[in-house]
Amino acid sequence: MRTTVRDVIAALTEPAGKLEQTVDGLLFGDPDAEVTGIVTAFMPAQRVLEEAHAAGMNLVIAHEGPFFSHHAAFAETIADDPVYRAKRDFILEAGLAIYRLHDHIHRYSPDGIADGLLEALDWNRFRVRHLPAAAIVEREATTVRTVAGELKERLGLPVVRVAGNPDAPCRRIGLLVGHRGGGANAIPLFGSERVDLIICGEGPEWEAPEYARDAARQGRARAVIMIGHAESEAPGMRLLARRLAAAFPHLPVRNADEEPVFAWI
Amino acid sequence: MRTTVRDVIAALTEPAGKLEQTVDGLLFGDPDAEVTGIVTAFMPAQRVLEEAHAAGMNLVIAHEGPFFSHHAAFAETIADDPVYRAKRDFILEAGLAIYRLHDHIHRYSPDGIADGLLEALDWNRFRVRHLPAAAIVEREATTVRTVAGELKERLGLPVVRVAGNPDAPCRRIGLLVGHRGGGANAIPLFGSERVDLIICGEGPEWEAPEYARDAARQGRARAVIMIGHAESEAPGMRLLARRLAAAFPHLPVRNADEEPVFAWI
Repeated sequence: MRTTVRDVIAALTEPAGKLEQTVDGLLFGDPDAEVTGIVTAFMPAQRVLEEAHAAGMNLVIAHEGPFFSHHAAFAETIADDPVYRAKRDFILEAGLAIYRLHDHIHRYSPDGIADGLLEALDWNRFRVRHLPAAAIVEREATTVRTVAGELKERLGLPVVRVAGNPDAPCRRIGLLVGHRGGGANAIPLFGSERVDLIICGEGPEWEAPEYARDAARQGRARAVIMIGHAESEAPGMRLLARRLAAAFPHLPVRNADEEPVFAWI
Repeated sequence: MRTTVRDVIAALTEPAGKLEQTVDGLLFGDPDAEVTGIVTAFMPAQRVLEEAHAAGMNLVIAHEGPFFSHHAAFAETIADDPVYRAKRDFILEAGLAIYRLHDHIHRYSPDGIADGLLEALDWNRFRVRHLPAAAIVEREATTVRTVAGELKERLGLPVVRVAGNPDAPCRRIGLLVGHRGGGANAIPLFGSERVDLIICGEGPEWEAPEYARDAARQGRARAVIMIGHAESEAPGMRLLARRLAAAFPHLPVRNADEEPVFAWI
C-alpha cells in the first residue's frame, strides 16, 4: 500500500476544516513522494531531522517551523547565516519532507495540542471546559506547589517557574499551551473562569507573572506556573504520533524525543 | 529647596531629547506636587508601592507600567479585576505619583538600562560597541559556562537558562536587555557582529534558543543565555537611583530591591 505525503497531509488537515489563513504547509518535499516513515516533533531541530533521515523516515511533521520564527519569511533575513544554510542544505540533500502542523491541530475539537497535555497529565477526567485558547480543569482542592510537583513528575521536567504564592490553595486551573501565556490571554481567566491558577507554556515575564506576584501580596490565591513552550506542546505531538500510527498502520511512525532547549545552570 | 514631580521628570527626560511616540508619562499623581522622596524600580509592584508609601516617599519611577502590560490600555480590559482595583485604589489613596520611564532611558546615550547591566557586571571595560538595541563586549576567551557563573555571581541570580553548548568558547558577546531576546534581534548579531554568545533578558523560547541548539548540533560555538527580563533591567534602574541621588542631593532616593518574580520549583 502506497501512501504519499499528500495522503498524510489530508489526514492531518481534515479534522480542522478549511482555514482561511495559516502558517501550516509543506515547507520542504514533494507532495507526491511515497512516505517511508513519519516523525512527529514539536520542533524540527537539526538533531530530529538527522535522526529521522538516519532511520529512513522521510516525513517530519513539526509544530513549529525549522528556522527559528513563527514566520517563514524570517529565513530570508538570515539567508547567509551558516546555521540556517547548513540546516536547509541538510534537508534538501536528505530529501526530507517537512510539514508544519500548527494552526490545524490547534483547531481540532478539542485542540489537539491541549488535548495531548491533558492526557499526559491524566487530567482529561478533570476537564470542565475547552475554550479556543484554554482548557479549564477543576479538581479536588490542593496547593499550587502540589500541582507544580505533579507537572514535573508527569511531564518529566527538572524545574518549573512559579509566580504567586506556591502555598496558595487551588482547585480550578486554566491551561494555556505554547505562547498563550501572555497577560491578555491569561489574566482575564481569573475573573471570567474563576481559575485559581494558570499553567502555561511561556509568556512575557512582566505580564501574568507580575499579576500573580501582586495578587499574592494582596493575599489572593491567584498563581501562574510556566512549564516551557516545548514542554507544554510536545505531548500534543506525541499524541498525534499515536493517532497517525493507528491511521497508517503499515508505516513506521514515531515521535521525536524532546530534549529541553535550555540547561538550567 | 522645593522639588516638584515636574522637576524630576524634566531631569529624567532631558538626556533623551523629545520622543515622537512613547509609553512614558506620569501615570498617577500631580506634576506640581512636592517630592518627598524618590523610589526607582524595574516594576512598580504592589510591595514596592506599599514600601515607598510607608517610607514617606511619594514618587515612584518605574521602567514598566503597574498593570501587567506594556500597553496602558490593557487596564481597561480588566477594569473589574480585584487585583487591578486594589492596586489602583492603593495608589490613589496613598497619593503616590508614578512616572513610567521606559523609552527615554533606553534612548540615553548609551542606553541607561544596558549601561546599568554592564556596570553591574563590571563589563564597561570590555564594551566595544553600543548599538541601539544591543551592547557588544569583547573579552579574554572563556566558555559560556564560565560566563553563566559570572552572571549569577555578579547579579545574585539563583539560576540562568543556557541554550547551545555550555562548554563552547566565547569571546565576543551581545547583550540585549529586557524583551529584546527575540530571534529577529538576536540571531543576526551572530553574523553582523560576530558574537559567540547572546545574553538577554527574555524572548520566545523557540526562536534564538532553538537557533543555539541547532548551532551546537552543527558543532558551532553560538549560544544564548537568558537571565530574566527584570534581572536584566533592574541594574539600570539601580544606576538611575544613584544618578538621581546626585542630581537631587536634598531628597531621599533609593532603588527598590528586586525580588525574583518566579520561584524555581
